[in-house]
This record gives sequence, structure tokens and C-alpha cells, in this order.
Amino acid sequence: MGEWFDETFKDQVRLGLRVRRSLLHSKSEYQTIDIVDTEPYGVTLLLDGAMMTSVREEYFYHEMLVHPALTVAPSIRRVLVVGGGDGGTVREVLRYREVERVILCEIDALVTEACKTHMADFHVPWDDPRLTLVFRDGVAYVREEGEPFDVILIDGADPVGPAEGLFTSPFHESCKRRLTRGGVLALQSEAPFLMREDFLRIVRSLRGVFPRVHPYFGPAPIYPSGSWSFTFASATVDAHPPMPERLEQIETRCRYYNRDIHRAAFAQPNDVRRALGARCV
Amino acid sequence: MGEWFDETFKDQVRLGLRVRRSLLHSKSEYQTIDIVDTEPYGVTLLLDGAMMTSVREEYFYHEMLVHPALTVAPSIRRVLVVGGGDGGTVREVLRYREVERVILCEIDALVTEACKTHMADFHVPWDDPRLTLVFRDGVAYVREEGEPFDVILIDGADPVGPAEGLFTSPFHESCKRRLTRGGVLALQSEAPFLMREDFLRIVRSLRGVFPRVHPYFGPAPIYPSGSWSFTFASATVDAHPPMPERLEQIETRCRYYNRDIHRAAFAQPNDVRRALGARCV
Repeated sequence: MGEWFDETFKDQVRLGLRVRRSLLHSKSEYQTIDIVDTEPYGVTLLLDGAMMTSVREEYFYHEMLVHPALTVAPSIRRVLVVGGGDGGTVREVLRYREVERVILCEIDALVTEACKTHMADFHVPWDDPRLTLVFRDGVAYVREEGEPFDVILIDGADPVGPAEGLFTSPFHESCKRRLTRGGVLALQSEAPFLMREDFLRIVRSLRGVFPRVHPYFGPAPIYPSGSWSFTFASATVDAHPPMPERLEQIETRCRYYNRDIHRAAFAQPNDVRRALGARCV
Repeated sequence: MGEWFDETFKDQVRLGLRVRRSLLHSKSEYQTIDIVDTEPYGVTLLLDGAMMTSVREEYFYHEMLVHPALTVAPSIRRVLVVGGGDGGTVREVLRYREVERVILCEIDALVTEACKTHMADFHVPWDDPRLTLVFRDGVAYVREEGEPFDVILIDGADPVGPAEGLFTSPFHESCKRRLTRGGVLALQSEAPFLMREDFLRIVRSLRGVFPRVHPYFGPAPIYPSGSWSFTFASATVDAHPPMPERLEQIETRCRYYNRDIHRAAFAQPNDVRRALGARCV
């Protein structure tokens, strides 16, 4: 058996995976990039030593980032994905026939190059003519004047390092300006229990910008504590119900998501409800 | 800072907690018992080196083992808890006024003694006159002729070591015989993703014994992969809806559970639904 790789959270808790072999160890302008084949979860991407995604359990995260927004947004013709250089998010977005144009704005071209080479099991349709790759800082990209989007999905790493700006109110304001009327923003919002303060800060920032803000929850086996949060935000649209004609396009292909999971994910645990106040109930 | 304690699952994945200090290291007739104060989760109970429960996150597990069954069972006067020597489960059961008698059948008296001494923050009402402690093998206890129970809760460790018998069809048959008409069984049924085969085996065993079997899911930060399953089983009762007069007694005191979480927990992920077949949908 190979070595252990351990990711440590705040020097308090760590998750270790048995590594079969290392496929890539590289350093970009922004971060260290590792791709390792692990015993429990297959090929796994690590950025600055933090586990990002793996072949065997990525579906929890990618399905839950994408489908709650994409099944309820009134239009899903133009979609922006910020971060998400591994391609799992755009793969899920491209499952919908109505999607005409997807911009993947990833800061680090080397991440995408590494994933294209070593994570073919993600089955990302990189050659889909609807997909455009933009290797730029997502914060600057969204701040500019430019085409509007029906859906923006923020698939950034944790709020330290290159993804830090994705968790701030000015960025959330920029997202709102780039959304169409009826547009929907969905983002990963950290671990709801172990990173409670980060989670609450993100939700509160969004509430300062969007009238409708709904956190939701799902499993994430390789992230600290194993549970993760996402947040749905919009000026005009609520998170229910998913449209039947959208569900029909993706539900049979999903491994985690379905219409029951959609509703269930938005159930608020009592302590989250209390921390967020009555507006959340 | 102190040492790390790591629990390893199948030599593939491990979860480590930073230990502030060890409070107890003991060996009973059945297992090794450790109680350690950990950095992220406070005082934590380990049996044979596996993390069982901790002061800061035990509420996820104990609320979800107890309240789905206790809010829907037609009668909850007599309740049997098998395992659960730490007392978290009986604490949740004793919150209901209608509960008249709770038997806690724990195989290992030293576990309960250790938890009474070192885990006072569980706030278990050990002196409640409705509670009777029985230190015996739960499999033998349930197999005997004896008083019937309205609810049986199986709060055993993993299906290796002293708890192995709690995961077999003969034991599930015994539980059925000891339940009243309308009685409900609820049990922990392992990690639905990382221990998929164990989870499916338990659910299938229960389906061979009970007409109504409903697995459900919740977070479990100190268990492998961070997600856990429970299963609700009954001859005559389904898992919905919880009774308003029961919810009123516990909902404001719960930190995780509420009526929305109750319904949400039973949503079946697509891959679980497929693995269990149409009877599960």
C-alpha cells in the first residue's frame, strides 16, 4: 500500500486518503496542483494541499451545485461558471438542451490542463461547441460590463488563496449586475457545521445583495466534516419547484440528485435556522 | 498541541482528531474503552479505537436515531434501547411526556460507567425514574419472551465486535416479536456511500422481516465519510407524518431535527433508489 495523504483543517481535524500513486505534482502561478490516485475515491485533485474533487464522489458536489439552480431558473440559455476548472460543473450544465452558451472562467489554466490529462473519468465534454473557456480572474471578469447571464455558478475553493475574492459582498454585487432579470446565482458556501462562521458570513453577505437567499445542504465525503452547504440566490426566483421538463432531461442520469433530494436539501436544521433568524424559516 | 488520534477505515481512509488529553483508557470484558478530549469536538468516546460519539456533534446522530420513530409511533409508552450505553439516545427518548418506561440494554456496563463519569456534558437524566439499565447482551435480551415494546431503537456500534449480532435477520425477527402491534423499530444502518454494501445488507434484511422499511440519512461528522444512514421499520406504520403533539414536545429543544428535517431525511438519493429497487421509491 502507498503513503497516506492527510488534509488538515485548522490543525484540529484531518482527513487522510491512502494514495496509490501520484500522477502530477506541479506549481502554477497561483497554487500547487496535485493529482493523486487514492484507494477509496480514485483520482483526486488537490490544490494547495486541499482535496477539491475525486472521480468516485464528485457527483454529490457537482450535481448539487448545478441542478437546484438549473431546474428552477426561468431561462438557462447563458450560464457562467466561475472556478470549476476540473469541468465537473460544466458537464452537469451541458446536460440541458436549452443551454446555448457556457462560459467557464477559471483563474488557473494549469488546473484545467491537468484535469483534462489525468481526470478523463470525469467525462467532461470539453469539445461541446456551447462551451467557452476563459482563463482569467473570475472577480475581475464578473466586475466588467459584458453579456448578461441567466445563471451564475460559483465553484471556487475555500476563502483563502486565489478564491478569496469569491466570498465577498462586492463580488456578490457584481454577480447580481451580470444576471438577467429572473437570473439565479448558486455557489458553494463551505461546511455548515464545522465552518459555521464562514457559512453564515457567506449567507449574510448574499442576503445583503439578493432578496431571495436559500442555503441548502448535501454530502461531501472528501471535505472537512463530510457535509457541505450551497446557497441559492436570486432577485425574483425561489428555489421551488423544479420544472418537470428540466427534471426529465437530467434526473435519470443523476446519481444523487432527484426532485425529492431537491426539496430535501433546502430543509433547515434547527441550529442553522436559529443562527440565521426567522427570515430563513 | 497534543497528539493526533486517527481512526482508519479499511486501511483506505482515516479521520484524525487533535487530542488535548486522554481522560480514560480502559479495557472491559468486551472492548477497549477510551475517552479523550479532542480539539474540534470536545470529549469523545472511542470503542476498540473507533469514534462513537462526541459532546459537540452527538446531537446529529442521537436526534436522528430517536425522533423520526418517536414522533410517528402510535404509542411510545414503552421503549427499548439496545446499545447506546453513552445515554444520548435515552436522553432524547425521555423528552417525551408519554414515555412511561425506558429499558437501556447495554452489553458493557463499563461503557456507561465511563460516560457517566467523563461525559457529563451529555446531560443524560440517569436518575429519571422511568429509566431502567440492563447490562446484558441485547441479542439474548430481545430473543427472550418478555414485555412488549412500542418502540425499539438499536444504537449499536459497527457490525464487527460485540455489536455484530445486531445486524442480522434473526435479531431483526426477534425485534419484531417484541414489538406491539403498531410498534416501530429504528436503527443505525452504517454509511450509505462509503459502506454501501453494509447499508444495503441491513435494509434488505429488514425488508425480509418488516412490511414497511424506510432508510433515512443525516450528517455524522466523526463517522467515516461524514454521512450516516438510519432505517425505520414497522409492520403497520409509515414514517410520515410526525404528530404535532409530539413535535411540540421536542422541536424547540432539538439542535438538528425538526419537521422539515424529518421529511427531508427520507429523500432517497438516486443511486440508493436504484440499488434498492422500485420498492424504495
